[in-house]
Amino acid sequence: MKLYGFWRSLATYRVKVALALKGMQVEEVSIDLLKGMQHQPDYKSVNPQAVVPSLVLDDGKPPLFQSMAIMEWLDETKPQPPLLPKDPRGRARVRGIALISAADAHPLVVPRIRVYLEKTLQLPEEKRNAWLMHWSLEALKAMEVHLKEKDTGRFCHGDSPTIADICLAGQVVGAQGYFKCDVSSVPTVMRVYEECMKLEAFSKAHPLKQPGASLH
Amino acid sequence: MKLYGFWRSLATYRVKVALALKGMQVEEVSIDLLKGMQHQPDYKSVNPQAVVPSLVLDDGKPPLFQSMAIMEWLDETKPQPPLLPKDPRGRARVRGIALISAADAHPLVVPRIRVYLEKTLQLPEEKRNAWLMHWSLEALKAMEVHLKEKDTGRFCHGDSPTIADICLAGQVVGAQGYFKCDVSSVPTVMRVYEECMKLEAFSKAHPLKQPGASLH
Repeated sequence: MKLYGFWRSLATYRVKVALALKGMQVEEVSIDLLKGMQHQPDYKSVNPQAVVPSLVLDDGKPPLFQSMAIMEWLDETKPQPPLLPKDPRGRARVRGIALISAADAHPLVVPRIRVYLEKTLQLPEEKRNAWLMHWSLEALKAMEVHLKEKDTGRFCHGDSPTIADICLAGQVVGAQGYFKCDVSSVPTVMRVYEECMKLEAFSKAHPLKQPGASLH
Repeated sequence: MKLYGFWRSLATYRVKVALALKGMQVEEVSIDLLKGMQHQPDYKSVNPQAVVPSLVLDDGKPPLFQSMAIMEWLDETKPQPPLLPKDPRGRARVRGIALISAADAHPLVVPRIRVYLEKTLQLPEEKRNAWLMHWSLEALKAMEVHLKEKDTGRFCHGDSPTIADICLAGQVVGAQGYFKCDVSSVPTVMRVYEECMKLEAFSKAHPLKQPGASLH
């Protein structure tokens, strides 16, 4: 298996954490999003949307794409340890929390959006940063309310990590690590994030610890 | 069961189609997004993210949220007719196509973004419309490439509708119906959309056919 990704990509981070939790090894190929390498024809033949990650299996079929779909595939093909609870209601809660980041907030801060805000809309840096901070924190605030529910344990749902924790961790990396949001209004989110980072699967894959990582 | 939604919401549309395909009836409650009713404390206690849809079950537990999570829950609790193929690889493809809309493109055109572009960034209407059209069409173009694959049939994946078709249909409603995109570059997408609209589950729930619907 070959994972096309990039150190800074929070969607790549999700898949790397999920693979590590499952104890799976993959070959990694870096697509430099900051240099626009995702728009090269070679990579667009791997991923028509020109986004990372893509997971190429060894079966010669088209690559898997979209981090949530890849994580679900991992959980279906290698069920232990599970990344989703067993009961449908719990699964819906976990997916819902995950999607607050993956489907609503994260798509607002990805490279193609940052480029559009800068090049097409020609917004000054101050307004672009305000955008990134605003939407990153909004997601964490919504997660914070859901985490007040009694199903929350050491992690978002009970005491073992799920795709909700994976997406939460990525969302915190973006909000706090990249965009320097004040996260004091989301203490439960941060408590869960700290629990995640105690696990090597989460901490070793941390975007800012990857080769080439730099915020400057 | 009670579904909180809004006629214009493409995420609500997804859940309504999925419910109809499953032959399920729900009570509908309209949350007028254009009047900002999603920000009322009453509704935020239902959905902390202040978005629709939310599905309230009869078990007294917190509502289900996020359209993709709700559709997965529906498919797990009422498996017939299936909204996902049986094989993990097919499921990954279907979820991936669905997420191109649900997790990447649609979050860019929802009310909170349109309000931010207008009120906070004070962009003129022309630039706001260009944003809506650009991102709506980008998603359809990526879908179009995936639909060239041999797993595509009458619908996105084989000959029965899945969550990929549900998300594709919503994406076309937004791109063509709301934002007047030129969809001539995505003939396969439009062919699948027409197949969807032959089914009452898709056509009866069409946003522009709902009570109160108006583009003016």
